[in-house]
Amino acid sequence: MKIGLLLIGDELLSGRINDANGKWLATQLTPSQFEIGEIKIIHDTKQDIKAALDELFAKFDIVLTSGGLGPTQDDITKFAIAEYYNKELVNLKENDDIVEAHYARINKEWNHKNNNYHLMPKDFTITHNPCGLAPGMIYEDQNKVILCAPGVPREFKQLFNEVYSPFLENKFNSKNKGYFALSIRTYAIAEEAIFADLCPTLWNDLEKFGKVSSLPLSDFGGVDIVVTLEVNEKLEEHKAMILEIINNSPLSKNVWQIGNLSLEEYIVKIANEKNKTISFAESCTGGLTASKITDVSGSSAIFLGSVISYANSVKTNLLGVSQSTLDLHGAVSEKTALEMAIGARKVCDSDISISFTGIAGPGGGSEQKPVGTVGIGWSYKDISESKIYNFVGDRLKLKQRFSNKGLMKLLEILKGL
Amino acid sequence: MKIGLLLIGDELLSGRINDANGKWLATQLTPSQFEIGEIKIIHDTKQDIKAALDELFAKFDIVLTSGGLGPTQDDITKFAIAEYYNKELVNLKENDDIVEAHYARINKEWNHKNNNYHLMPKDFTITHNPCGLAPGMIYEDQNKVILCAPGVPREFKQLFNEVYSPFLENKFNSKNKGYFALSIRTYAIAEEAIFADLCPTLWNDLEKFGKVSSLPLSDFGGVDIVVTLEVNEKLEEHKAMILEIINNSPLSKNVWQIGNLSLEEYIVKIANEKNKTISFAESCTGGLTASKITDVSGSSAIFLGSVISYANSVKTNLLGVSQSTLDLHGAVSEKTALEMAIGARKVCDSDISISFTGIAGPGGGSEQKPVGTVGIGWSYKDISESKIYNFVGDRLKLKQRFSNKGLMKLLEILKGL
Repeated sequence: MKIGLLLIGDELLSGRINDANGKWLATQLTPSQFEIGEIKIIHDTKQDIKAALDELFAKFDIVLTSGGLGPTQDDITKFAIAEYYNKELVNLKENDDIVEAHYARINKEWNHKNNNYHLMPKDFTITHNPCGLAPGMIYEDQNKVILCAPGVPREFKQLFNEVYSPFLENKFNSKNKGYFALSIRTYAIAEEAIFADLCPTLWNDLEKFGKVSSLPLSDFGGVDIVVTLEVNEKLEEHKAMILEIINNSPLSKNVWQIGNLSLEEYIVKIANEKNKTISFAESCTGGLTASKITDVSGSSAIFLGSVISYANSVKTNLLGVSQSTLDLHGAVSEKTALEMAIGARKVCDSDISISFTGIAGPGGGSEQKPVGTVGIGWSYKDISESKIYNFVGDRLKLKQRFSNKGLMKLLEILKGL
Repeated sequence: MKIGLLLIGDELLSGRINDANGKWLATQLTPSQFEIGEIKIIHDTKQDIKAALDELFAKFDIVLTSGGLGPTQDDITKFAIAEYYNKELVNLKENDDIVEAHYARINKEWNHKNNNYHLMPKDFTITHNPCGLAPGMIYEDQNKVILCAPGVPREFKQLFNEVYSPFLENKFNSKNKGYFALSIRTYAIAEEAIFADLCPTLWNDLEKFGKVSSLPLSDFGGVDIVVTLEVNEKLEEHKAMILEIINNSPLSKNVWQIGNLSLEEYIVKIANEKNKTISFAESCTGGLTASKITDVSGSSAIFLGSVISYANSVKTNLLGVSQSTLDLHGAVSEKTALEMAIGARKVCDSDISISFTGIAGPGGGSEQKPVGTVGIGWSYKDISESKIYNFVGDRLKLKQRFSNKGLMKLLEILKGL
């Protein structure tokens, strides 16, 4: 069953913020019978909201809206929807009760003067908001359902999980068990090289099992091939058959994971399984690599620390990089990367360390060492090595690409231990 | 002039990736006569693409598409659009020339067997792609224009900037000079407290100058109030009048910036102006704070480094936190935060340092120190202090909130120096 998702708010179309609710909802729905049919992002004007509802209900039986339920004058979703259904706004006792309960949760008192939370379109069901003040609302009209949630991601997510998801499951009870997305995550190969040269029959071979899609990931220099499998009694058998196809294909050496974990989640998982500790020395990546690893719950068991040595003085004082190395080879060099990796491993006392020293730009490049040059070092067991790589991109892209290159090296080392 | 933006791709509706092109384009368009009227995100099926074009062209004269121009079987945008306009696909010499030039740029040879890049709907204009292999295309039909770009953000951005933006400026030559978004960025206050209690007339006072919108930023515990001003001869006068309204309002003490810089950009700007160096000691934030600061070009002049002391051993060895402090008070305590800040300032030899030690969860909390507890320390001149704060949220939210709390403290210190 497809849901039309309507995201309402000027801030989403002005570049001020990027929507976070669409991606979250899609991930949430994947194992269910529901999926997002379309996302529509519009300005908060009554006219746009009403036109969008017409378009979405022409295609979908369920429309979920996000945004515009707050207390300020640009929050007009409720009023536009009341007009759309030709309903007046009413104040029932249950509305007051719900709003008062929300305020009581934060130890405050509410009265009608503060906002319009107590007003709801007639015949609409007001819903609790598990972690915010503005209530949600539901309305059913001739087998079409509209569900309205605040746009603040934390409120949107909890309201969906605790109220709307059970409501939808209950209303659209069905036997369909949903889909499973099997991801074949590749590295160091271009999309075209996979399907035109290396494995010309792969796409069609995989398509026998379900819809195939291919997603180039420029931050990795890799491609995710995703097969969407129906959840039924054949699921495990189909998964095993796909694994065999991949393992017997020349692509297998480029596959770093068959699964849906991010690179950092996968590294934390393997490091925990192998009981190996990790440290970093980061210059150009500026803490990004450590931050990605520590985004993963469970990382504290294997990640000891990182020295962000942006200034050369920190490279020498904390990591023991020699002044002569910096003078002779420069901060962005194989030698400095090597000494940084050795230094980080020593001061953090880790099993493995990875170092990053490069030029993320836009300034700082030269003819010999242009923006995008990075030295990556690694140290584990009795092996300490480093290498210079070159990438293209703007500052943020380069930080990502440098970081992912080092994390891929870390994964390779971990797999071999 | 409004542009309908059509983002095509299953991966955008499955939760696999979040669109990056919409936000970028909106920011890019702000100072121009163009703006995004609506963003529509759809699956890559021919039927959905054709229906979306009907809907968008009913509202807008310009439609820009992103995605589905690549070489694989799920890349069907070109074929769907050819059907929509009832055009056959043709291979002109100029198509070959452009594709060959793209391949020559990466020192490869191309032939027709590799992909369908050379096929274009009849009467469409093929366009260069400044940094990718798949060409873009433009078609004009009765004053309606469609522009098609690849979805890969780097390609989308460069193609728009170098080809589509000049094309649109040229075609829709107009006197309108666009809009200027004036942001009043507040901190430590809720939306409702601003407009219902503190400044009940503020909204209407600001609305005399242009459209007002209010955006709560949960990662900050603050609110951005944005006034969209028309660019005309009155602009500077209007800006000055708004500044005066804000400076004379009780809200002024909550305003941390009138402008559009991010917190980290603003900090780097002020630190550079005041010539003050910065370091961090990060435990729970895991490098996020350093990474945010180093996202800003120009940070290398004022940011020296950070010690990511995830393990206690790193806190003692690198930052000089005493073992007895850890034993008596625990890693998450005012005392540890204080010693971390003092240690970071000392080992990095910076003017100011900020430290973070807390519990980002989901595990690790206790009744005394629940998930969301963070100790933040600061050291500058002869002042070294620390404090415990409490936040709510999941692991990633908490990292952001901890980090922003420390950065706000840093900004406060910088402003006072």
